[in-house]
Amino acid sequence: MTESDLPVVQLTPGRWGDPAQTVEVPPAALAALQHLGVRRREAEGAGGPGARADGPDADARAGAAPQELMELLGAEHVQVDFAARWAHTRGYSTPDLLKDRAGDRSGMPEAVVYPGSHDEVLRLLEICSGLGIAVVPYAGGTSVVGGLVPTKQFIAVDLRRLDRVSEIDEVSRTARLEAGVRGTAAEAALKERGYTLGHFPQSYEGASIGGYAATRSSGQSSAGYGRFDQMVVGVTVATPRGTVELGRAPMSAAGPDLRQLWLGSEGALGIITSVLVRIRPRPVERSFEGWRFASFTEGLDAIRRLAQDGPLPTVLRLSDEAETAVNLADPEVLGGASGVQVIVGFEGTATAVRRAAVAEVLAQAGGEPLGEEPGETWRKGRYRAPYLRDPLLDEGALVETLETAGFWSKLPALKAAVTDALVKSLGEQGTPPLVLCHVSHVYETGASLYFTVVCAQTDDPVAQWQQAKTAASTAIGAAGGTITHHHGVGTDHREAYAEEVGPLAIESLLAVKQVVDPRGILSPGILLPHQG
Amino acid sequence: MTESDLPVVQLTPGRWGDPAQTVEVPPAALAALQHLGVRRREAEGAGGPGARADGPDADARAGAAPQELMELLGAEHVQVDFAARWAHTRGYSTPDLLKDRAGDRSGMPEAVVYPGSHDEVLRLLEICSGLGIAVVPYAGGTSVVGGLVPTKQFIAVDLRRLDRVSEIDEVSRTARLEAGVRGTAAEAALKERGYTLGHFPQSYEGASIGGYAATRSSGQSSAGYGRFDQMVVGVTVATPRGTVELGRAPMSAAGPDLRQLWLGSEGALGIITSVLVRIRPRPVERSFEGWRFASFTEGLDAIRRLAQDGPLPTVLRLSDEAETAVNLADPEVLGGASGVQVIVGFEGTATAVRRAAVAEVLAQAGGEPLGEEPGETWRKGRYRAPYLRDPLLDEGALVETLETAGFWSKLPALKAAVTDALVKSLGEQGTPPLVLCHVSHVYETGASLYFTVVCAQTDDPVAQWQQAKTAASTAIGAAGGTITHHHGVGTDHREAYAEEVGPLAIESLLAVKQVVDPRGILSPGILLPHQG
Repeated sequence: MTESDLPVVQLTPGRWGDPAQTVEVPPAALAALQHLGVRRREAEGAGGPGARADGPDADARAGAAPQELMELLGAEHVQVDFAARWAHTRGYSTPDLLKDRAGDRSGMPEAVVYPGSHDEVLRLLEICSGLGIAVVPYAGGTSVVGGLVPTKQFIAVDLRRLDRVSEIDEVSRTARLEAGVRGTAAEAALKERGYTLGHFPQSYEGASIGGYAATRSSGQSSAGYGRFDQMVVGVTVATPRGTVELGRAPMSAAGPDLRQLWLGSEGALGIITSVLVRIRPRPVERSFEGWRFASFTEGLDAIRRLAQDGPLPTVLRLSDEAETAVNLADPEVLGGASGVQVIVGFEGTATAVRRAAVAEVLAQAGGEPLGEEPGETWRKGRYRAPYLRDPLLDEGALVETLETAGFWSKLPALKAAVTDALVKSLGEQGTPPLVLCHVSHVYETGASLYFTVVCAQTDDPVAQWQQAKTAASTAIGAAGGTITHHHGVGTDHREAYAEEVGPLAIESLLAVKQVVDPRGILSPGILLPHQG
Repeated sequence: MTESDLPVVQLTPGRWGDPAQTVEVPPAALAALQHLGVRRREAEGAGGPGARADGPDADARAGAAPQELMELLGAEHVQVDFAARWAHTRGYSTPDLLKDRAGDRSGMPEAVVYPGSHDEVLRLLEICSGLGIAVVPYAGGTSVVGGLVPTKQFIAVDLRRLDRVSEIDEVSRTARLEAGVRGTAAEAALKERGYTLGHFPQSYEGASIGGYAATRSSGQSSAGYGRFDQMVVGVTVATPRGTVELGRAPMSAAGPDLRQLWLGSEGALGIITSVLVRIRPRPVERSFEGWRFASFTEGLDAIRRLAQDGPLPTVLRLSDEAETAVNLADPEVLGGASGVQVIVGFEGTATAVRRAAVAEVLAQAGGEPLGEEPGETWRKGRYRAPYLRDPLLDEGALVETLETAGFWSKLPALKAAVTDALVKSLGEQGTPPLVLCHVSHVYETGASLYFTVVCAQTDDPVAQWQQAKTAASTAIGAAGGTITHHHGVGTDHREAYAEEVGPLAIESLLAVKQVVDPRGILSPGILLPHQG
């Protein structure tokens, strides 16, 4: 089974992923949780677990949508009922799920609309701008940074009807993907012609092309296929003032690369309705393998060598000691020794040469080959981690992730600073955490760091995490990392982002917003401060 | 002799390159020129050939600079004399050189100032903004698109004193290069530590880091080292309203990649004072070889295979039939056969494997190996072509280049459309041209096209070329190419650029300009229309 065979999953509100695929917390993990003081909490909020799946309740008033949108889209493409609105509320961060469980109804759109084409998106933006109604684009709905929660009443623009895969150009190896195409659907459509996009973020089962583009997503195979923004060669954006269409050539010296101004703009500068992406032939070979290094430091040095001098595998991941210990149900995988695990994956044609060359570099750097079993285990479980979060939350654990990136020379200090900040903040709250870390995206000059935090919930886990997250964000800034490598800014990172790029950059983006969105209806408060 | 051994050349105004290296037109070329109707023109303008080197003339009034700049920079770093101003007038396009020859004094700055640090640039921009005086940054001065000629009186900000190479980080493989560092000086400094930048545009002997960054330059080794904008991981910009500093990590999902908003901004959104770039170990091996293909179409197919499926050599160039014929003094290089030449170059360590793999792809695609001699000939002459233009102009020929890029599937039609437009326009003017073309920058989804045009000059060669260039630009737009792959926009491409990106994109850039440059003093009329 490969990526293109995965089904299109309709996310169930309130819990991650395909509801048919439930996950139980392994007994060993339950024991570890007890060590952290995790206790099942009885006093869930009004909603209870998975509240977003539940039907009408006390807050279940109907929303409202202007008549003009009914006329434009047809009544069947405008929903104002509670279930539709609730299904488009917030995303899948742990605070989002905790709020669901607490019955918190904030962040709900007034209506959900389903335009069917770029022109309909254009026209609806014009209408909403005229009426001063805020809109937030909704593609896969998988944001973990509050990217779907603006700071004023709004209508959710669900892009699922923009689901066409077209203009497959086998000479240029490009294809046009509309914003509502799910990652899985894109792969299935490309597979029919023998191609792949190669973009497999952990949210793959739920996320969509528009979200990838609007948040500068990066997938698990980024070492081989690049980041999503590197795959995009053209972008089409609808704004309240008209269409922006960019990308006449792969690269150009015609002024700044303005594709990069709209990629990552998170709905604040328009709604990306389609992208022209680079596609590649489907790999005919695939293999994944594990390696052991004595320490994170040694492992980091090894993957840096691959990133800088090559060859690069398609997938390259390094877990630190803590994550390695937690991930490996069976410590015998490391031959009974302590240490850290590296996963390398190869996709393509004639991968044997590259695989041998990578093995040589890893062995020279002190690595011990663990064979294909750890690689296959990782591959099979690559989209499973988020599934585990819901039952862990059920058990009373607080589980969340955060990520950053920086230059290689700064990474060890950056990792230590973030870990210390989390340990200190949560320790002071009486809930000492387990902090796991891995590197899963590498560049010649640096890499990402991805942290997973597990501890006991306090009585107010949303506030508890907020405090820890603020401490981590401050540490990231002080250590010179970026506030996010691939999750995006949303509302959660808005202030840290402003700090990172500085006031003139924020003013510049607000000026662009004023041009394309003079009434300020596009995702107010997301990415950029809400004006007026 | 490698790139880092080349001397820092002080460009002589009015003629390209190191004055010690004169070039004579080969006899075979003189005969070919006769066929085109080229005749030495006796009636040169007031300036005569190389007029910019000539001393004071009738127009040689002194310029002026505000007292505040004298106080800020010291009188020795403010020049208002004719020679200094004339040396900073225009760039090195053929119309620029023709204007020099005609004694045209337009585009001369009122003064030339030499700030010594980022803070001095900041302060001088603040002063000039307060006084409403326009400024244009001047790094290498090698623009071929009118990038140094704003639409109002101005002061040239020569960045040559910003010449530091610092922060060489061997772990992250990054270095900070100030804007005034010449390409040659950067290579020399990096060589001392065992590194290279790998950026070798044809303007390499004269161009500077600031120009590379401000115009999104691409070098002859782009297949191996990437474009300049791909080398930059951090950028520091001085604006009249303060500093913009971007790039905490190689890549990030923290909003749009705003580095890409300032890269390519050509002085209109600030003066780039330094960049943090990715560096690589100096190659220990180097080889160049030639290949023959039966036709441009076959050659294009072959280099596309390398660009899409790899492996990529470090240098990859394909000349069309006409360019191949002109370039090869000795047609025996192609074994006496007709056809086209491909140059492939390899740099790095253990290049033999890659070289063999490239050879296999080229041979499978119908290529015939021509050995190393054509490769070495190309390598030795790689910076010589612009030297030949001055004596050709002396002979009465009109010689100019232009370039574009597009997706692979559109390239054949794009090439034909541009060629036809040039042939038609110049034919109608009574000067049928020779049009040569090559591909020298490849991507997975497309490539660049670089045209060289030779014909007889009319009595008004500036107007003659303007007419041909307009026809070519219109053809590029109609065929879906970008108006420039690596020369930049300047003033020459300003209107075609606006057409290419559309009115909302231009309005967006003007809005950013309004933020960082409220008085509109930064390079007015360059890249963007002059406002107010």
